[in-house]
Amino acid sequence: MAADAPLHPDVSPLATLLGTWQGRGAGEYPTISPFGYVESITFGHVGKPFLAYQQRTRGTDDGPPMHAESGYWRVPSPGRAELVLAHPTGVTEILEGELVATATGLLLDLRSTSIGLTSSAKDVTATQRTFGVDGDTLQYTFRMAAVGEPMTHHLEATLHRTPASG
Amino acid sequence: MAADAPLHPDVSPLATLLGTWQGRGAGEYPTISPFGYVESITFGHVGKPFLAYQQRTRGTDDGPPMHAESGYWRVPSPGRAELVLAHPTGVTEILEGELVATATGLLLDLRSTSIGLTSSAKDVTATQRTFGVDGDTLQYTFRMAAVGEPMTHHLEATLHRTPASG
Repeated sequence: MAADAPLHPDVSPLATLLGTWQGRGAGEYPTISPFGYVESITFGHVGKPFLAYQQRTRGTDDGPPMHAESGYWRVPSPGRAELVLAHPTGVTEILEGELVATATGLLLDLRSTSIGLTSSAKDVTATQRTFGVDGDTLQYTFRMAAVGEPMTHHLEATLHRTPASG
Repeated sequence: MAADAPLHPDVSPLATLLGTWQGRGAGEYPTISPFGYVESITFGHVGKPFLAYQQRTRGTDDGPPMHAESGYWRVPSPGRAELVLAHPTGVTEILEGELVATATGLLLDLRSTSIGLTSSAKDVTATQRTFGVDGDTLQYTFRMAAVGEPMTHHLEATLHRTPASG
């Protein structure tokens, strides 16, 4: 996903996301025990009007893989963002919402407009995600309605921009 | 996505897919002019019960990126497969169907059970995909019902397994 093309102007409001972010998060949900995780998120582009997004978590720095998700981020019109995500748990998410540029980064407030489930997936019915970038820090929250629970806080994490490599 | 863990037994029926495939395809649809493309598909794993899937096409070998998609392949029960896909065009696909092991590879016949669309995406309503692996050759077809057209052939491609690198 190394970009030898200029960033597409449609996604210039997301430019600060490009690169790799690493950090730690905490998860909870009424149906499970609270847990911590380490996380890596990468945003790339190929000159087209989207960013490619890859996320992975582990329980500890050298632990086995925990969650992963991948997909694409779009800016359909100024001040709006769309996320198009696939999960290895058999879930797809489409989220839409506001994109606000701040003096030092950006804020996103997104809600699911479509959730897809394979026959073997857990019953997720709706999700909400916020993302905030302030300089070299990225924070997000993730809420979901799932397995009979109403919209409930599930994840929060703080990541830091890693130095560009190669 | 380099695997230092053994392949999860649930996805062992998909083991022949692991690695990178490259080849050429042809596209058509009632609403567009026919086109050719070159394609690269990569399947990886991290020891969990799914394969990670990344696909990219270009119009020519050194042309700019055309399409891309990413997601995960699952085997929920013997003889069944689930695909969980995100597209940068604002579309998510969940497909389910039969997985058949052959003497020299496998066959998959999958139909969409859920399509998600962002507000700015084209109107895709259903998709069908077949995949066949015969030794070091992978062939697929892709049909879709979209933009008012009924289920119609859209893509076919033939790819070859590339030698494993480092």
